[in-house]
Amino acid sequence: MDLACLDLEGVLVPEIWIRVAESTGIAELRLTTRDIADYDELMRHRLRLLDANGIGLSQIQEVIAAMGPMPGAAEFLDWLRARFQVVILSDTFYEFAMPLMAQLGHPTLLCHRLRVEADRITGYTLRQPDSKRAAVRAFHHLNYRVVATGDSYNDVAMLAEANAGILFRPPANVVAEFPRFPVVTDYAGLREAFATALN
Amino acid sequence: MDLACLDLEGVLVPEIWIRVAESTGIAELRLTTRDIADYDELMRHRLRLLDANGIGLSQIQEVIAAMGPMPGAAEFLDWLRARFQVVILSDTFYEFAMPLMAQLGHPTLLCHRLRVEADRITGYTLRQPDSKRAAVRAFHHLNYRVVATGDSYNDVAMLAEANAGILFRPPANVVAEFPRFPVVTDYAGLREAFATALN
Repeated sequence: MDLACLDLEGVLVPEIWIRVAESTGIAELRLTTRDIADYDELMRHRLRLLDANGIGLSQIQEVIAAMGPMPGAAEFLDWLRARFQVVILSDTFYEFAMPLMAQLGHPTLLCHRLRVEADRITGYTLRQPDSKRAAVRAFHHLNYRVVATGDSYNDVAMLAEANAGILFRPPANVVAEFPRFPVVTDYAGLREAFATALN
Repeated sequence: MDLACLDLEGVLVPEIWIRVAESTGIAELRLTTRDIADYDELMRHRLRLLDANGIGLSQIQEVIAAMGPMPGAAEFLDWLRARFQVVILSDTFYEFAMPLMAQLGHPTLLCHRLRVEADRITGYTLRQPDSKRAAVRAFHHLNYRVVATGDSYNDVAMLAEANAGILFRPPANVVAEFPRFPVVTDYAGLREAFATALN
């Protein structure tokens, strides 16, 4: 029995900040690490925008709960959990993700935490630096082989550390920059890739 | 968000070998590490008994699938997964446990593997020595606080390594030998113990 590590946004659920931007009409919330390379600067920018528009955690949680997993994600996850031990490795925050986890049958999720005061998001705490890679290393120390999948730059260290890494619906620049990883674009392809990754 | 590590047999599901002994009528399969202290000797004894009686893996899997989780276990686990990230740490084998995992909504399970040839169990592979303690240590390295629960001697290292350890329905000798751990005897008590363990 081997271990599967999955990115969350873009693999099982839509991009959370994109949906929040759409729902609130604050277009600047669509900016990602492709636009502002420094993650801390990006997050502080986002939190300033929420504050300036009087948007609290509960409103964002409503948006997230309503968006649901991507079509086919829950079925894919059920298929995978019967064949691998599954852990979700994400750079999102528990306060955002938990409404979605309930809709996915509460898979184990390792991510980060927000700081919240009376529904106002005042900051965030990264659990540890390079957390996705650190988690795969930890599972290797527990003598597991790991197959990992993700869609973006912040997944590449995890894919490289795993025994096998799979890109799922990545943007063209990630495909071009990391040709070593196979690319799949739908859940049928992802099943096939997991089923054969360690052969 | 903190992490919960649960023993499997005696906490969420009945003792597997006891049920196999009852179902097959082979009383000697009831022996545990309390009777034969050396785990490897005990396991080799069990596998010899299965062999001598012509009992293959599929027959044992049928017994296990039919026994189901303990009453209230699935509800307790659902309650826990909404509040903690949950990982099951067990000294059982995937080949035995997976039919039960399906009935519990496939929580992440770290355990061991059997060696099987054409339905005959020929041996087993321990994933690593002192595996429950090693897993709690790994989660500490990932900056998680851990609350753990189990019922027996093979859980004590896990309970001691965790930030808080809880004994669930332990035998009297374990209670007497390890008075430092709180003891609970039902799922209502276990919820309360988890909810307050890190306060």
